[in-house]
Amino acid sequence: MPENATANPEPAAPEPRVVIVGGGFAGMHAARQLGSARCSVVLVDRNNHHVFQPLLYQVATAALSPADISAPIRGVFSHQKNVSVALGEVTGVDLEARQIHLGGGAVAWDWLVLAAGATHAYFGHDEWARVAPGLKSLDDALEIRRRVLLAFEEAELEEDEASRSAKLTFVVVGGGPTGVEMAGALREIAAETIPEDYRRVDTTTARVLLLEGGPRLLAGMSEQSSRKALRDLERMGVEVRLNTLVTDVEDGRVLVGEERVPAANVIWAAGVQGAPLVRDMGVELDRQGRVPVAPDCSIPGHPRAFVVGDLATLTDPKSGKPVPGVAQGAIQMGQFVGRLIRKELEAGSSAPATSAPDDRPAFTYLDKGSMATIGRSSAVADLAGRSFGGLFAWLLWSVIHVMFLIGFRSKLLVMVNWAWQWLFMSRGARLITGSPEIDVKQARDLSRHTE
Amino acid sequence: MPENATANPEPAAPEPRVVIVGGGFAGMHAARQLGSARCSVVLVDRNNHHVFQPLLYQVATAALSPADISAPIRGVFSHQKNVSVALGEVTGVDLEARQIHLGGGAVAWDWLVLAAGATHAYFGHDEWARVAPGLKSLDDALEIRRRVLLAFEEAELEEDEASRSAKLTFVVVGGGPTGVEMAGALREIAAETIPEDYRRVDTTTARVLLLEGGPRLLAGMSEQSSRKALRDLERMGVEVRLNTLVTDVEDGRVLVGEERVPAANVIWAAGVQGAPLVRDMGVELDRQGRVPVAPDCSIPGHPRAFVVGDLATLTDPKSGKPVPGVAQGAIQMGQFVGRLIRKELEAGSSAPATSAPDDRPAFTYLDKGSMATIGRSSAVADLAGRSFGGLFAWLLWSVIHVMFLIGFRSKLLVMVNWAWQWLFMSRGARLITGSPEIDVKQARDLSRHTE
Repeated sequence: MPENATANPEPAAPEPRVVIVGGGFAGMHAARQLGSARCSVVLVDRNNHHVFQPLLYQVATAALSPADISAPIRGVFSHQKNVSVALGEVTGVDLEARQIHLGGGAVAWDWLVLAAGATHAYFGHDEWARVAPGLKSLDDALEIRRRVLLAFEEAELEEDEASRSAKLTFVVVGGGPTGVEMAGALREIAAETIPEDYRRVDTTTARVLLLEGGPRLLAGMSEQSSRKALRDLERMGVEVRLNTLVTDVEDGRVLVGEERVPAANVIWAAGVQGAPLVRDMGVELDRQGRVPVAPDCSIPGHPRAFVVGDLATLTDPKSGKPVPGVAQGAIQMGQFVGRLIRKELEAGSSAPATSAPDDRPAFTYLDKGSMATIGRSSAVADLAGRSFGGLFAWLLWSVIHVMFLIGFRSKLLVMVNWAWQWLFMSRGARLITGSPEIDVKQARDLSRHTE
Repeated sequence: MPENATANPEPAAPEPRVVIVGGGFAGMHAARQLGSARCSVVLVDRNNHHVFQPLLYQVATAALSPADISAPIRGVFSHQKNVSVALGEVTGVDLEARQIHLGGGAVAWDWLVLAAGATHAYFGHDEWARVAPGLKSLDDALEIRRRVLLAFEEAELEEDEASRSAKLTFVVVGGGPTGVEMAGALREIAAETIPEDYRRVDTTTARVLLLEGGPRLLAGMSEQSSRKALRDLERMGVEVRLNTLVTDVEDGRVLVGEERVPAANVIWAAGVQGAPLVRDMGVELDRQGRVPVAPDCSIPGHPRAFVVGDLATLTDPKSGKPVPGVAQGAIQMGQFVGRLIRKELEAGSSAPATSAPDDRPAFTYLDKGSMATIGRSSAVADLAGRSFGGLFAWLLWSVIHVMFLIGFRSKLLVMVNWAWQWLFMSRGARLITGSPEIDVKQARDLSRHTE
C-alpha cells in the first residue's frame, strides 16, 4: 500500500485493500462509509472531480459553470486519510486474480466495488454519437453548450432561410429527466434569455423537438407527473412526440420514422449502456451491458466483489421492481456496500472468502421520491405517493438539489446564480470555449450581405 | 447594413458603418461610446465573450471559473441596438479598399477601429509555445489549469525521484504582472491549498522559478514596488532570478543560460507581439509588430482608421513615455476614439476624408496607478506617486478589480468566491477538463508500487 510503504518501512501485516472504481454517487458514498474502517481504500476515476450529475444539464445550457456542480475528489477525501485517489481509466477486471487493469498495469484488491456507471446507448448506431452527443460528463456538457450557443451565432450569419431554420432546430432524443430538462431549458434560452442579443435572427422562432420512444414522458415517474410535464413543455412551445423513434441521424438532419427533419442540433438522452470495463469479466451481462448482482450487490460467486449504481441491475425485494438508475439508487447502494464491507472487516474476516457470510443483509431501495424541472418556475415531483407540479414543485426541486450538492461553497454559489437568473432571466455562463468553427461560406454570406 | 435590410426594405441613405475588430477593453469601450451615434457598429471577435484579462491568471490557477470573469459580448450590447456582433477571425485589413477580410469574404467599413490586442512573443522560437503556453485567452487559462493540476496528479503516481521533482517544478518566464501573479499563485497552491489532498507526494516541496530578463520585476511599476514584490515572493518560497534569459525550452527541461533545469511545467509570460492581422496592411510596424499611430490614434495617412489598445504604439505627449500596454491604456484609447468618431459623425463629415479635421484632439494617458497581487493578502500598488504593499495593497487590489468587472453578477460571484477562499484557503475551480493523459508508464508504476 503506498502510504504504508512510506510511513512504515519495516514489513507489517498489510491492511486489506478496497479498490473502488468510479467517483460518482455510488463510489463516493461507498468510500465515505469506509472512513473509520481498518483498510486502505484506492478510489480510481478517469476524472479528478466528482460531478453532481442531476445538474449537468444546467452546465450544458449555460446556466451554471462546471465548478459550481463539481468537487475535486481529492478535496472531498483530504481528511479521510485511508483513501488514496488515482487518476486513470480502468480497462478491465480480473475476478480470479483479484486485479483491475489500469493503463498498462494491474492493481490488486482484496475487496472490489465497481461503480463506473452507465452511458447513453445509440441502439447499435455508435456513428450517431458524433452528430448527437450525450450528456454524461462535464466535457460532454461543455461540448453541448458550445454547439448550442454556436448554433445561434451561425443562424445570425446565415442568409438561406432553410439553412437558418435548420440551425435553429434542436432535436432532443429521449423523454427521461435529462431529455425533459434539456428541452425545457433550450426553449427557455431561445424564447426568453437571448432574443434581445440578436439583430437579424428571431430566436423565439427556434424549434425544440422532444422525441420519446415510449407512450409517455418521464416513464420512471407517476402518470400524473408525465401529463403535467407534457402540458408544461407544450405550453412553453416544445414539440413533444411520443411513441416516436429516430431511424437515422446525419449532419444537418434527423430521420424521424419516415419524416426528414432538417436540424443542425441533436442531443442524445436515450438508452442505457453499462460502462465497458465489465465486458470481459466472464460474467453474463443484461441486454444493456449491466451486471446482474446478488441481493447483497455482490457478483454471484464472488462475495468480495460488488457492483453498485447504474452499472448494476437488481430487483428490489420489497417492491419487486428494478432499483431505478437514479442518484438515490446509486447513493443507497454505495452506502449499503460500504457499510457491509466495514462490518465484515470489523468481524475480522480477512482471509479470502469463497462464500459470503450467511447473515449478509439484502439491499432494499428506499424511494425518497423523484423530480424533474421543466423550466423557470415549473417542475414535477412524485413524493410520498403524490404528484406535484408548477412553482411549488420547482421550489422543492431547487431546495433539494442545492441541499444535496457536495460542499457548502457549491451550495452558496448555485443559490446566488439561480436567484440572479430567476430575477433577471439571464444566463451567466454563456461562453463558448474551444475553437468556434465558423466556416468560409458563412463569412462570405456576411460580407455579401454587408457590402 | 443587416438590421436595416430587414427593418427598412426600401432603399434609404445608408448610415455610416463603424467596424471594430476585437472585443477586449479597447474595442468594447469604443463601441460603448458610439451608443448614441448615428451609425451602425459591427464588432467582430473570434470569441463570443469579453474577458476581464487582469483576472485571467485566477482562472489558470483554479481560483475562478471562466464565467466569473467574462461576459458574452452580445449580452453587453443587447440594449445598444446599433451594435451588431459577428463571431469570426479577421485575417487582414485593406486600407485602400476600406475592407476587412473575414473568413473567405470581406466587410466594408467607413470608419475602422482595430483593437485586436497583442500576444506573448517567443523571441523567434515559436516552437516553444507547445511546451510553454502563454496566458491570453480563456482557452489558454483552462489549458494551463489542466497542466498544473495534472502535474500534481502525475507526481503522486511517479516512482522515480528525479522525474517526480521535475513534475513538481514550475518555471514562469517573464516578471511582469502576469508572471508575478502566476508564480505567487502556483506557490500558494502547492504550499497551502492542496498538501492535505495528496498521500504520497509532499506538494510543499514544489519549486516555482520566476525568470526575468531585466534587472527588476514589474518593470512598469516603481522601484519600491519591484523590491516589495521580490521580497514577498521570496518569502513565499518562489525562486526569483533577475537578468536571466531562457535559451531553450523542451519537454521536461528548460535551459537557463547554461544551466539545465528539469521542469515539466513552463508558463510563458514574456514579450509582446501585435496581432497578425496588421502585418500585410502596408504600414510599417515596430519591432513588436505593433502599429505606430498618430497622436489621434489614427493610422498615418488614413484619418478614419484607428488602432487602439495593445496593438498600437504611441508616445504620450504629456509624459513623453509610451502609453503602457495595460487595461487602463486600452480603455482610455478605446473611449477616446469612440468619442472622436461620434463627434465627427455629429458634425456631419460623412464624405470619405483624406485628411483629418484640423481641430482633432491628441490622446493623452491618465495614469490612475497600477498594481499586482502576489498572493493571499499581499500585493503591490503604485498610486498617486506612492508605493503600497502588503495587506492594504491587496485589499485595494481586490476592491478595484471587483469594481471593474463588467456586470454586477460577475462582481457578486467573484466576491463570494474570494471571501470563501480567503477564509478557507480552498480553490473551488480545481477541475481538469479535456482528456487527462496519464501514460502507460505511470499506471505501471502505480501497479508495481501496489502489488
